[in-house]
Amino acid sequence: MAEALIYLDENSSLSLQAQIRQKLVDAIQKGVFPPDRRLPSSRKLADQLGVARNTVVLAYEQLVAEGYLVSRERSGVYVNERIFEGRVGFQGRPVQANDEQEWAARLRQRAPKRSFHWPDNWQTHPYPFIDGYFDTSLYPITEWRESTRLALSVRELNQWTTATDYTDDPMLAEEIRTKVLPRRGIQALPEEILITVGTQNALYTLVQLLVDHTTTVAIEEPGSVEFRQMVTQRSATIISQRVDEGGMTTDDLEQAVDVVYVTPLHQVPTGVTLSMARRRSLLKAASDKDFLIIEDDSECEGHYLGAPFPALRGMDRENRVIYVSYLSKVLAPGLRLGFMVAAPALIREARRLRRLMVGHPPLNNQRAAAFFLSLGHYDAFTMRLNRIFRERWSALRDALNHYLPQSVMIMPSQGGTAQWIQGPDNLDVDTLAQEAARHGILIEPVHRFYSTSMPPENCFRLGITSLSENRVRDGIAELAALIRELTTPEHDQLGQDTPSHLVGDALHEAMSGVTIVTRTVYGDPCTITLQPDGTMTGAAGHDNEDCDTGSWWVDGDHWVRRWKNWSYGEEAAFLVAIEGQRIRWYNDERRRVDAAVIRSRASATG
Amino acid sequence: MAEALIYLDENSSLSLQAQIRQKLVDAIQKGVFPPDRRLPSSRKLADQLGVARNTVVLAYEQLVAEGYLVSRERSGVYVNERIFEGRVGFQGRPVQANDEQEWAARLRQRAPKRSFHWPDNWQTHPYPFIDGYFDTSLYPITEWRESTRLALSVRELNQWTTATDYTDDPMLAEEIRTKVLPRRGIQALPEEILITVGTQNALYTLVQLLVDHTTTVAIEEPGSVEFRQMVTQRSATIISQRVDEGGMTTDDLEQAVDVVYVTPLHQVPTGVTLSMARRRSLLKAASDKDFLIIEDDSECEGHYLGAPFPALRGMDRENRVIYVSYLSKVLAPGLRLGFMVAAPALIREARRLRRLMVGHPPLNNQRAAAFFLSLGHYDAFTMRLNRIFRERWSALRDALNHYLPQSVMIMPSQGGTAQWIQGPDNLDVDTLAQEAARHGILIEPVHRFYSTSMPPENCFRLGITSLSENRVRDGIAELAALIRELTTPEHDQLGQDTPSHLVGDALHEAMSGVTIVTRTVYGDPCTITLQPDGTMTGAAGHDNEDCDTGSWWVDGDHWVRRWKNWSYGEEAAFLVAIEGQRIRWYNDERRRVDAAVIRSRASATG
Repeated sequence: MAEALIYLDENSSLSLQAQIRQKLVDAIQKGVFPPDRRLPSSRKLADQLGVARNTVVLAYEQLVAEGYLVSRERSGVYVNERIFEGRVGFQGRPVQANDEQEWAARLRQRAPKRSFHWPDNWQTHPYPFIDGYFDTSLYPITEWRESTRLALSVRELNQWTTATDYTDDPMLAEEIRTKVLPRRGIQALPEEILITVGTQNALYTLVQLLVDHTTTVAIEEPGSVEFRQMVTQRSATIISQRVDEGGMTTDDLEQAVDVVYVTPLHQVPTGVTLSMARRRSLLKAASDKDFLIIEDDSECEGHYLGAPFPALRGMDRENRVIYVSYLSKVLAPGLRLGFMVAAPALIREARRLRRLMVGHPPLNNQRAAAFFLSLGHYDAFTMRLNRIFRERWSALRDALNHYLPQSVMIMPSQGGTAQWIQGPDNLDVDTLAQEAARHGILIEPVHRFYSTSMPPENCFRLGITSLSENRVRDGIAELAALIRELTTPEHDQLGQDTPSHLVGDALHEAMSGVTIVTRTVYGDPCTITLQPDGTMTGAAGHDNEDCDTGSWWVDGDHWVRRWKNWSYGEEAAFLVAIEGQRIRWYNDERRRVDAAVIRSRASATG
Repeated sequence: MAEALIYLDENSSLSLQAQIRQKLVDAIQKGVFPPDRRLPSSRKLADQLGVARNTVVLAYEQLVAEGYLVSRERSGVYVNERIFEGRVGFQGRPVQANDEQEWAARLRQRAPKRSFHWPDNWQTHPYPFIDGYFDTSLYPITEWRESTRLALSVRELNQWTTATDYTDDPMLAEEIRTKVLPRRGIQALPEEILITVGTQNALYTLVQLLVDHTTTVAIEEPGSVEFRQMVTQRSATIISQRVDEGGMTTDDLEQAVDVVYVTPLHQVPTGVTLSMARRRSLLKAASDKDFLIIEDDSECEGHYLGAPFPALRGMDRENRVIYVSYLSKVLAPGLRLGFMVAAPALIREARRLRRLMVGHPPLNNQRAAAFFLSLGHYDAFTMRLNRIFRERWSALRDALNHYLPQSVMIMPSQGGTAQWIQGPDNLDVDTLAQEAARHGILIEPVHRFYSTSMPPENCFRLGITSLSENRVRDGIAELAALIRELTTPEHDQLGQDTPSHLVGDALHEAMSGVTIVTRTVYGDPCTITLQPDGTMTGAAGHDNEDCDTGSWWVDGDHWVRRWKNWSYGEEAAFLVAIEGQRIRWYNDERRRVDAAVIRSRASATG
C-alpha cells in the first residue's frame, strides 16, 4: 500500500502536519499517487498513522490551498496533474567510461585537493580540540530567526529584491561601516567596502586581481594553506616569511615583493599577535618598497589579554592595506558573509569581478545580517562569545600548565580560538594524533601550514570552539599521559641510569626550605618556596602577578602537595629525585612530569 | 537631548519595540549614552515617543537579558561597558590620492564593466517591460519563511553547521536530484551534482576549469554577455554561432571547437527554443568533433506552447553535456542557489575550485531551500508562477498583434519571460528606449548581446516578470504609438504621394465581400472575410486553429470593425486606402497601422 510509505519520525524537527505533508509530496513525486487515483481519506490516513484526524485534514487543506492537490466534490482529494506539467521523460543516462583520465586531458587548470579535514563524526568524540566548528549551543538561534523574519517582510523584500546593480545591501554595508569596522579602529567610506561570500571569496577575488606569474607574494610561514594555494594557482613567486613570538618577521622582507599577506591579530595558525613594532615596521616597509598588504582579520574572535592593537588598515596612511574579515566565525558556515575594505579604485574593480564570479552574496542573508547588527544582537552575541571562548582558552592554558609543564611550549598569544603547541623534540605528532583520536581526543597536526618539505614534527594545534569548558581539563589530562607515553626518553624515567628517588624522612628533609625556580607553560617565570612547616608559597609571572599558597607533606615515597588555587586546588603526589641543583618529579609510571632548579635552600636548622 | 535621536517610523516593517531597540543601539554605538550615563527612564521615554510604557520596558528588558544594558538597583539602566571591550580608537584615514591611475598599474587583471543596467527607480515606471526583476507579489513569502524557520531549528543546525568538508547540504542535493532534475528529463547520480552561488558562479567555475588561451569556445550570437566576458577574460578564441528561428545553428560548427555554450530551452536573449533536430545534430557534432557542451538552462521558467524538449544533458550518452541551472528566477536574487550536473570527475574538480573561490554556498539557504522543495512549496510555486507568466506572456503577444501587426516581428518562442522584437528597418532602438522611458515604458536594447561591431539597430526585448498582466496592453499601446511616430516613412502616411482613402459608400462597396490575407505578429497566416451583410469571419494559424467572428460597418470616412474575441473585442476605426490588391489601414494621425493583400473579391452582385 502506498500509505506504507508514510511513516512519522518522532525525533524530527518538523511538526506531524509538516511531516505528513513532506511524505505525501515525496510519494506523489515518486508516482505513488498518479493524478487519477484518489488519495487515502483523512480518516483512514489518520488512523493508520495514529495521529488526530485534524492533523491530516490540515496537511491536505494546505496542499489544496497551494494547488498541489485538488478536491473533487463527493469524491475526495486528488493530485493536481498540472504539478507535472512541462515534465519530460527520462532519456537514459550517460555511459561512465574512463572518467578521470579523459577529463584530465580536458582540464585547463586543476584546483588543489584539500590537505586535511576533521572526521565527519567529530561530534561523537568527547574531546574535539577543533578550531572552526561549533557546538550548536553557541548559535544565536532566537536572534537570528528574528532577523531573518524581519528581512522577509514585504517591505524589506521590496527593497532587497529590486536592486538593479550588483551593489551590496546598503543597510548591511552601513552597519559594517558604522558598527563593525570602528571596533578595529577602521574609518571607512561607503565606497571602500565590498561584501563577499566569506573571507575566502574576498581573498580569492584579490588574488585574481593583484597576482599573476609576474608577482612576488610574501606569505607567513607557517601560514594559511588556502591563500598559498590561491597564489600558487596564479603561478606567482612566493616568499615564505618566518613567524616568531612577535608574529611575522618584517625586517627581512625582500625588495622585490609586491603583495604581503599577513594575519596580524591572531596569526593563522600560531595565534601569535603581531607586535606594535612589527606593525609599524611593516607599514614603513610597504611605503619604502612600494608593496601592498592584505590584512586577514578573520581570526577576530576573542582577544583576552590586554587591549588589541588597531588593525593595520586603521594605521595605514597610504591606502596600501586591504582589510579582509567577516561577521562572525560562528555565523560563518551558515551565512558566508565576509567583506573587504580598500581603496575605492580597487573595490570598484573587485565588484566587477565579483559580478562575474558570483553576482553578489545572497541578499536575504545580507538583509538579515543587517538587522542582526542594527538590533544590537551582534554586539550582545560577540560579548557572550568572547566570555565563553575566554573561559575555554583559560581552561586550556591552565590544563596545559598543570599536566604538561615541562613537555610543551606554547606560542605567546593574546587570544584567538586555538593554541599552538610545541611538544617534546622527539614527539611525532602524526602518531600522537592517531593515538589521541583512538582515545576520543582530536588534535590538529600542522605540517600543512608549512611550505618547506621538512616541517617540524612536534607541533600541533588545539582549538576551543567545539568543546565545552568542562571537557578541557580531562581531555588535556589524557593527552598529557599519551604524550609522556610516546616521548619520555630512557633518561627521563626513574631507573638504573638516574639517581633513585628520595623516600620518607630523607625526602622531607631534602624538600624543607627550598626555593625552586621553574617556568609556566606560557614561558612566565615561577618561584615556589617550601617552608619546613609544610606550607608553601608560589609566585608566577614577570611581576609575580599570579600568587598562591598551599601545603606539602611526605607520604612514604611520595611528595604530596596541594595548592589553594593552582593546579585545580587538588592534591597531587609525585616521586622526587634530586641531583645537585636539579629537582625532578616523576609519576607512578616512573615517567618524569616536571623538573626545576633549586635556587636556594634555607638551612633546616637556621 | 539624546532622546531626540529616537524617532519612530510608522511605515517601518519593525514593531515599535524593535524600532526603539534599534534606535537605542544606534545611539549607544555612536556614543550618545556612555556607560556611566543613565538611560532615560522607561516612563520618560515612553511619554516622549508617545508609546505605551510597556513597549519601552520590553525593549529595555530584552537588551538587559542579552547583556547589552545592565540594570542597577535603585538607579536605573546603564550601558554595559563590556559592549565596548576590545574596541580600539580611530587612527585616522588613508590619504586618497591618484586613485585610479595608481591602481591601474597594480592590477594584473581587470574585470569588464557592466554594459547595461535598468534605472534604480524602475519600480516607479508604470510599464517596466523588464526581464529578471519581480513585483514582490510573486515572492512566496509565507512558504519561504516557514522553510527558513525549519532550517533554523537546533536539530537542523546541528546537521548543517557541523559539516567538515566542502560538501553540499545532502538534503538539498537529494531534493534537486529527485524533484528538480527529473522535470527536465535528467537522471543524475549524487556525485554528478554540485551546488553553486547561482548559475553565474557555476559558469565562472567551469570557465576557469575548461577554458584558457588555447581553447576555442562557440557562443550564440546574439548571446549571453556575461559568458562572453568570462571567456574573453581567459583569452580564449571565440566563435560566434548564429541564432535563427530554430535556435543556435549547428551545421556550421568548426572542427577546432572545444566547448560550445548553448541556452536550448529559451535562448538568451531571443527566447527561441532549440529545435529537436538541432539538439540531435549538436550532440552528434560533439561526439564527432570531440567537444564539450555547456547547457545553460537558467531560463527554465515558463514554457507555454507544447511540451518542452528534454534537456541536452538528458539526451547525452557520452557525458559531454554540462548542465547548469538554478532553483527559480524569482528566488534567485535572494538565494543565489544554482547547480551544475556533469561527469563525476569534473564535479570533483569543480568542488575543489569552489572551495578556494567561495567555500560553499551559504548552508542556511541550502537547508531552507531543501525544506521548500521537500514540502512541495517549490512545485506549487512553480505552477503558480507558470500560470502568471503565461497570462502575461499571452497578453504581451495579443497586444503586439493588435497594436503593431505590421511594424514588428517576434522571434518564434514557446515560452520564457521575455520576447525578442524586431522593429521596422528604420527603427533606432536607442531613441525609442529613451522616448519610451520618458513615457514610463522600459524596454531593453540588445546591442550588447552581439559581439559584432554592427549589431541590428531595430531589435529590442520586452520582459514580463516585473509588470502585472493588466499593465501589458496599455504599455504596448503607448509603445506602438511611439514606434509609429518614430518610424512611419513618408510613403506610409496618407498624403499626396499615396492614393487617398475611401469614404462613405465607396468605402463600403470596396470592402464588401473581400477576403484579406495577412500575418499575425508571430508569423502565422491569417485570413479575414468581410461579408456584404456586415458580418466577418477570421481564421489564424497554420491549421486555422484560432477563429473568430465579428461585424464591420462604415462611419463617414472610417471603416469600423469589432471582433467577438480578437483585438480585445473592442470597436476600432481606421482610414482605408486600396491600390490594386493592396489594402492599407491608417490611424487618425494618417499613419499606416496595418496592410494586407486582397486575395479575392466576391462580386457584390453575385
